[in-house]
Amino acid sequence: MKVNGTHYRSIWFDHDLSEVRIIDQRWLPHRFEVVSLTTLDAFATAIRDMWVRGAPLIGATAAYGMAIEMARDASDAAMNHAWDKLHTTRPTAINLKWALDRCRAALLPLPVDERAGAALQLAHEIADEDVEINRNIGLNGLEIIRQIAARKPAGEPVRLLTHCNAGWPATVDWGTATSPMYHAFEEGIPIHVWVDETRPRNQGAMTSWELGSHGISHSYITDNAGGHLMQQGMVDMVITGTDRTTATGDVCNKIGTYLKALAARDNGVPFYVALPSPTIDWTVRDGVAEIPIEDRPEREVTFALGKLTDGTIGEVQVAPDGSPGGNPAFDVTPARLVTGLITERGVAEASEAGLAKMFPDLKGRAQ
Amino acid sequence: MKVNGTHYRSIWFDHDLSEVRIIDQRWLPHRFEVVSLTTLDAFATAIRDMWVRGAPLIGATAAYGMAIEMARDASDAAMNHAWDKLHTTRPTAINLKWALDRCRAALLPLPVDERAGAALQLAHEIADEDVEINRNIGLNGLEIIRQIAARKPAGEPVRLLTHCNAGWPATVDWGTATSPMYHAFEEGIPIHVWVDETRPRNQGAMTSWELGSHGISHSYITDNAGGHLMQQGMVDMVITGTDRTTATGDVCNKIGTYLKALAARDNGVPFYVALPSPTIDWTVRDGVAEIPIEDRPEREVTFALGKLTDGTIGEVQVAPDGSPGGNPAFDVTPARLVTGLITERGVAEASEAGLAKMFPDLKGRAQ
Repeated sequence: MKVNGTHYRSIWFDHDLSEVRIIDQRWLPHRFEVVSLTTLDAFATAIRDMWVRGAPLIGATAAYGMAIEMARDASDAAMNHAWDKLHTTRPTAINLKWALDRCRAALLPLPVDERAGAALQLAHEIADEDVEINRNIGLNGLEIIRQIAARKPAGEPVRLLTHCNAGWPATVDWGTATSPMYHAFEEGIPIHVWVDETRPRNQGAMTSWELGSHGISHSYITDNAGGHLMQQGMVDMVITGTDRTTATGDVCNKIGTYLKALAARDNGVPFYVALPSPTIDWTVRDGVAEIPIEDRPEREVTFALGKLTDGTIGEVQVAPDGSPGGNPAFDVTPARLVTGLITERGVAEASEAGLAKMFPDLKGRAQ
Repeated sequence: MKVNGTHYRSIWFDHDLSEVRIIDQRWLPHRFEVVSLTTLDAFATAIRDMWVRGAPLIGATAAYGMAIEMARDASDAAMNHAWDKLHTTRPTAINLKWALDRCRAALLPLPVDERAGAALQLAHEIADEDVEINRNIGLNGLEIIRQIAARKPAGEPVRLLTHCNAGWPATVDWGTATSPMYHAFEEGIPIHVWVDETRPRNQGAMTSWELGSHGISHSYITDNAGGHLMQQGMVDMVITGTDRTTATGDVCNKIGTYLKALAARDNGVPFYVALPSPTIDWTVRDGVAEIPIEDRPEREVTFALGKLTDGTIGEVQVAPDGSPGGNPAFDVTPARLVTGLITERGVAEASEAGLAKMFPDLKGRAQ
């Protein structure tokens, strides 16, 4: 999407420079910096140290890393070395292994002198496929926004509320929960987005940054505010992303999502979740009972990170000395509170039947 | 309550020094500082610049301010001057005017040479009355905690969740929502308190400080976490304070309270609100429709305040440059979500009938 009027992806091949470029996301939302990655080491560092983040973008970055290494040395040994090196950067990232396996399976049978070109082509394809998935999520979500807009007086904005960041920098472009917003904006539907801060890591700052950079009207609000806004009729639709969706439509997402779903239900506000189908875990049926929730470091809660007076990134201690912090990182929103699941194929009912109907080819598959 | 093993009130008369002392709350929870107030000017500054805060404490501070002025000059002119000077510090604080009016009504008929002693006595009475109200709220809430404890295996803590700060430093002692916690602790019932951070102003830091200072087990958590904790059976009871309660039992409290009430209802967790009866507004029936909600400055949301690395109090900018913040400061929890109202007289059902039954003498009174 756009930053200062220029369209960016989160990773791209610069044909003039013959280099892969990324946005170094460590400094967002307070500083926008583009860097080139020119060696396998640089790619490994970028993934490991979270210059890039988000499953789809990590996958695409790994594929470009493999391509850059193949341009230097396309031997089997170099390919295996690249696979190992990139895979160990974030061994639990499922998209990383998936992308690397796909690269190796496609490149290994090829003659050595064809591998560099094929690897770059494949990286482009992996990136483009992600863009296409998110574009389709956006078009399916756009249809819901169009219907809400049609019921409102002309010119009155559709007010959306979102939690955490399911935005374009975590994907290659469009994002998931944000994709319908960008599509609505591009179509000229007036929208306003209430952006939950999303403590403790304040991912709402990222969401605010990307919406603001693209020109979309928004407000940064505390995680406490959404219930009141819904109660006062100031929210037309909630839309969030998800880290994992069960076969029955339960949604595991950033901590606090469940509270917004409850408020939406209590006030008759539709609550949608945007997701690419690979995040459906067909092996899990009861999200609340079965999904283990990560407890993250206390310090994320007892401190807050941001920009200091001198412009550097720093933190303040918000809790008093000696008070322990509790930091469950995700929660589960039961399917009964979810109005619909916006996928690349269409909007599915958040239920076993709804998902099975939308994805008969995937149902029952192990993740 | 206790700080480092010593019992404190938030305001007291030091008989050795013959001085009124307060905790300078501007530095809490990061620094604990006690100061003497020895002149009318000092009292006015302490109220205006929020060295003291909370309706009951502001009232008691005004009464002590009047007493100190009467000791210097007990003339009618001095009394009227003190009334004016103290009243203009925070003209919308209802307890302030109430305490000043009570002082003037009691002192004016007295001979000048009896006024100083009577004024000090009256300030003590006003402070003691507040302590007594909050002590009784605590005893009534204690009974609920006892019942929960009795249903649990011996030694297993009763887990309470609270939002914002309705603690002893906002009153003269005990606090409102915290009073049952202190009483349970003093009785030896094991408890653990989940303390909501309460963005944007992080009053949860104050709650954590006072509970920790008294020796009560607690965790500082984000406002997002409570729903998940309730879903996982880790909360036995929610207890909050309130700024204003309607005649029908709707509760206006710090933004985000409503979200916790929804989560409590969804998980069968009892949700109690502790309040002294003067905060009941008998003239309001529908809290959501009738209570205007204060929109506070954006900067509270786009920045976070705390202790910097060098130990000073400072802030970080959490939202990106240019993103506007939205800051509704309170929300309304409808009576249907409230299990009971813990008052100084007993636990009332959160309904018109319940409140009328508990307060037949107050019902219908204008606030």
